[in-house]
Amino acid sequence: MKVVLVSPRNPLNIGAAARAMSNFGFSELRLVNPYKVAFREARSAVGAAPVMAAAKEFSCVADAVADCTLVAGTTTGAHREMPQELIPLDAGVKRLRNHKGEVALLFGSEKFGLSNDDMSHCHWLMSIPSRGEHRSMNLGQAVAICLYEMTRTARKLVPVISPKHASSEQVEVLHQRLDDILGRSGYYDHTGVLGSERRLRALLKRMNLSARDAAVWLGIYRQILWKLKQN
Amino acid sequence: MKVVLVSPRNPLNIGAAARAMSNFGFSELRLVNPYKVAFREARSAVGAAPVMAAAKEFSCVADAVADCTLVAGTTTGAHREMPQELIPLDAGVKRLRNHKGEVALLFGSEKFGLSNDDMSHCHWLMSIPSRGEHRSMNLGQAVAICLYEMTRTARKLVPVISPKHASSEQVEVLHQRLDDILGRSGYYDHTGVLGSERRLRALLKRMNLSARDAAVWLGIYRQILWKLKQN
Repeated sequence: MKVVLVSPRNPLNIGAAARAMSNFGFSELRLVNPYKVAFREARSAVGAAPVMAAAKEFSCVADAVADCTLVAGTTTGAHREMPQELIPLDAGVKRLRNHKGEVALLFGSEKFGLSNDDMSHCHWLMSIPSRGEHRSMNLGQAVAICLYEMTRTARKLVPVISPKHASSEQVEVLHQRLDDILGRSGYYDHTGVLGSERRLRALLKRMNLSARDAAVWLGIYRQILWKLKQN
Repeated sequence: MKVVLVSPRNPLNIGAAARAMSNFGFSELRLVNPYKVAFREARSAVGAAPVMAAAKEFSCVADAVADCTLVAGTTTGAHREMPQELIPLDAGVKRLRNHKGEVALLFGSEKFGLSNDDMSHCHWLMSIPSRGEHRSMNLGQAVAICLYEMTRTARKLVPVISPKHASSEQVEVLHQRLDDILGRSGYYDHTGVLGSERRLRALLKRMNLSARDAAVWLGIYRQILWKLKQN
């Protein structure tokens, strides 16, 4: 997929777009008529050097999307005169993903968005759902959200880390120690709240302990018991 | 939901976070120990004036999340030492949406992300799926993507019955009592396992306490402390 920025003015936004591309695994950045100074300065964007180095410059939208078979534009949806179809981002992304062939995703300038003329190059338009009173989004953020949505459904990127859970046997040992501690410290003299075995066990079960944390708690309880027995 | 930026350095990122909040309908921005100049400059962020004007400043994470019953941290998942659960953004957002009570979403500084100490205040961590070779994301873009995901799935979910959660302040009180108990019972003499404040706090956070259970544990700790002081 080609990410096409039309007339971007701010080097930070160009850099931010390139960085998001790098984060989400996209490499083809195209700039249509960028503000020269901005393009030059953006080349030093943090962590996006390869994307910026490979960025291509075009003088018009037609040239920038010439080799693409599907062109989707992004818009806030406000003040739009073009009769093109406008759909939410997630619906648009599904179409982009299903398309066999080269895809271009167009973003307009920071100040004006895509012009009617730019939009005329698009097969359809999509919009990031946002609050009606404040739809205008930062360019770098809009690019990041679109690319996130593109890769969101193509997962396996985050390794899920979940610790091994404590066995019921481990929890039972904790239960016995804690019961002993409560008895020795006089807890049962004052309160009926935990007056039954099951209440205490349920309290421990609700901790949803990992095996590792159960071992830490056992060490803590042992030490407290040792101290209580000293006296 | 509170958006908490820990030690942000760049006014453009603070402004971008505020703008994304405005775009997606979030209003409570909290800054922990922000770089003063950055905070001042960010107040003029495009289109985010109301959010910036209402932004609150805190000197530490504990204070910033004191009134919250669920604290979720964001991380790239790299160089992580904490044993907390790490899940993908969309799974995390489901939990945030189902939570009954105040939620805080933590973002670390541009350069270092959340520290281990910051993470010890979190119930769990989540990560935006990205390319393994380039996970480090721009702060403003990361905030925008998280808030997009929060609102993307905004629909009437099946009401989940879950008890009221303990506030961070309650957990902090438990933390202090347990630390006192461990000191008095000689636990720290033998083991280095819990040798730091953050490890003990994280151990308690992982219990995922309800407000009611937190009160029960506080009663238990008080009684043990009372007994230990008797001798």
